[in-house]
Amino acid sequence: MSGDHGPSVCVPGALTVLREEAALELILVGQPEALEPELKGLTELERTRVRIVPATQVVGMDEAPREAIRRKKDSSLRRALDLVAAGEAAACVSSGNTGALMSTAHFVLGMIEGIERPAIISALPAVGGHTCMLDLGANLSATAEQLVQFAIMGAVVAEDLLARPKPRVALLNIGREDIKGNETVKAAHQRLQATNLDYVGYVEGNDICAGSVDVIVTDGFTGNVALKAMEGIAHMISAAVREEFTSSPARSLGAIAAGPALSSLKKRLDPRRYNGASMVGLAGVVIKSHGSADAVSFAHAMRVGVLEAGNGVPSHISAQLQRQAA
Amino acid sequence: MSGDHGPSVCVPGALTVLREEAALELILVGQPEALEPELKGLTELERTRVRIVPATQVVGMDEAPREAIRRKKDSSLRRALDLVAAGEAAACVSSGNTGALMSTAHFVLGMIEGIERPAIISALPAVGGHTCMLDLGANLSATAEQLVQFAIMGAVVAEDLLARPKPRVALLNIGREDIKGNETVKAAHQRLQATNLDYVGYVEGNDICAGSVDVIVTDGFTGNVALKAMEGIAHMISAAVREEFTSSPARSLGAIAAGPALSSLKKRLDPRRYNGASMVGLAGVVIKSHGSADAVSFAHAMRVGVLEAGNGVPSHISAQLQRQAA
Repeated sequence: MSGDHGPSVCVPGALTVLREEAALELILVGQPEALEPELKGLTELERTRVRIVPATQVVGMDEAPREAIRRKKDSSLRRALDLVAAGEAAACVSSGNTGALMSTAHFVLGMIEGIERPAIISALPAVGGHTCMLDLGANLSATAEQLVQFAIMGAVVAEDLLARPKPRVALLNIGREDIKGNETVKAAHQRLQATNLDYVGYVEGNDICAGSVDVIVTDGFTGNVALKAMEGIAHMISAAVREEFTSSPARSLGAIAAGPALSSLKKRLDPRRYNGASMVGLAGVVIKSHGSADAVSFAHAMRVGVLEAGNGVPSHISAQLQRQAA
Repeated sequence: MSGDHGPSVCVPGALTVLREEAALELILVGQPEALEPELKGLTELERTRVRIVPATQVVGMDEAPREAIRRKKDSSLRRALDLVAAGEAAACVSSGNTGALMSTAHFVLGMIEGIERPAIISALPAVGGHTCMLDLGANLSATAEQLVQFAIMGAVVAEDLLARPKPRVALLNIGREDIKGNETVKAAHQRLQATNLDYVGYVEGNDICAGSVDVIVTDGFTGNVALKAMEGIAHMISAAVREEFTSSPARSLGAIAAGPALSSLKKRLDPRRYNGASMVGLAGVVIKSHGSADAVSFAHAMRVGVLEAGNGVPSHISAQLQRQAA
C-alpha cells in the first residue's frame, strides 16, 4: 500500500468498488496495523470478502526499480504481484512508484509470449466517449514491430474495456499523408495494413480526443508527452474557469446562476474519472493508479482492474496474437 | 496570397496591423485583381503605405514542396520570399502550404550560419503568460546538437517576442531526473549545461503551459504531436462548455448571468490570439499563419512578423551563436 497518500485513500477507494461488485474479493497488501482501522465501516458480510496480506516493506516513490526488485522482496508492491503470479489475485492495482511497479511486474509475471515490451495504456476522454492510447511512457522508443504489438494490445483493451466490438486503430503521426513520418512510423503503417485489425491509418495529435478512433498507437516518449501536455492544458483551463467566475462579486453571482452547467462540466472533465492505466503485455493484469489519486480516483483504477481481470485481457491478447500469426 | 480563405481574410488582417503600426509598410503579393478590391476602405495616406506586387501562380495547400520550388517561381509564396531575400521586405507572413513555405524559404533565404535545420517556434498560452516551444514540426527528429541550436534560437525569440531579458530554457522529457530520457535528450541536456543560456533542465508535458519556463525545446515530431494534442483538448473543452450552457432553457439563462465570465474566458482561450509560428534558423523572418486563420488571427501572425523583424531575430540569433562559440 503506497502512493502519496497510502491506505487512507486506497482502502476507501477499494471498498467503494467492493460494494459495487458483489463478486469481488479484495486482498489488501501492506502493514496490517495501518490497514485494519480503515475496515471499521464494513458490514460483517463485507468483511468476509476482504483479506489482509501483510508486507513489512514499502517501495519509496523515488526508489530505483532495480533496487526495489533486489531489496524489497517483502514490499506491498512485490507481495501483491506475487499473488497475481500465484493465481491468488486476478489483478494488482497500485498507486506506487511507476518504474518499480513496471520492472517488478515484468520480473515477477513475465511477458505474454509474442510481446516484446510492456506498454502503458489508458482510456482518455474524447468527444462522445473515450479513446485508448498507448504507450504512455513504459518505453523511451519503439520499433515498428513493437508498435504493431501495441496496436494489437490496444485493440484488445478497447474491446474489453470500452466494449467496442471492432475497434478502429490508428497510428499517431505528424500528418495524415502516406509520405509523412519517420522510418519507424512508416514501417509500422505498412505492417498494420497487413493485420486483421480495423487499422484506419495515421492520426495527428488533435485526433487523440476527437473521438474518431478507438485506439491510438505511439511510442512511450511521444505518448507520455502528449498525455501530460493534455493534462496540463486541461488543468490550466479549469483554473481559468475558476478564476473568471470568482474575479468579482457579480461574477460569483453569475457562477451561482450557472451552477448546474458548471458542476456538470466539472464532473465531465474530472480527471479522476480517467484514472487507472494498464500495463499491458505482462502475463497478468497490473493497473497503475496516479500517485496523487484520491479515493474517488483510486476507485476508478480499481474498476479498470475488475474489468480487465473479468475479461481476461492477457489471454485475450495471446489469442489475438495467434490469430494475427495464423 | 493563399491559405484556405485567400485575400478576403489575409488583407483585412494585414490592414488591421497597418493601422496599428504607423511605421509599417505593407507589400501584398498575389493577383492584383483579387487584392485591389480589398483596399477600398483605406484612407489616401494609408494607401501610400501599401504596395501590390503581382504574382500569377498559387501554390496549392497539398502541393509537394519540391514541385512548388521547381514549378511555381511566380507564385505569391515564392515572390514574397524573394522580396525578403532582396532586402525589400523585412518579413514574409503566409497562410499557405507549410511544407512548401519551409522548403522554399530554405531554398531562397538559406540558413543562418551555424544553424543546421530550421525549426518552427510559437508562443503558446501558459499560466501567467506565454511559453515559446520549438520545434513544432519542421523536422521529424533532431540530434543533440540541433536541440542545442533550437535552444539558442528559442531563447532569442523569447527575448525578442516576449520581452524576457534572460529566458529560462528547458528540455522536454518524460521525467525530471537526470537518468530519464533517450540518448539524444541526455546528450543535449549535458551540452545545454555548458552553454551560457539560463538552462533549467528537464520539464514534462504538463509543464508546457505551466508558465514556469520561457522556452521549451524538443524535436519536431514530439513538439507537433504535443501542440496538436493541446489544441484538440482545448477544442473539446470549449465544445463541452458550450454544450453544458445550452443543454436546457434554464442553463441558457445561467449562461446569460454568467455572460461576462464566459466571454472573458472565451477571449482568454481564443486560439486566434496564438496564431503566427516563426520559422527560425532561416536567414530572414518567415511567419506561418494557420491555413484556416480568419482576419483576427492573421493580424496576430502579422504582429509576430512585425516584432521579429523589428528586433532583427535572425541577426540576434547569429550574435548569440557567436557568443556561445566564444
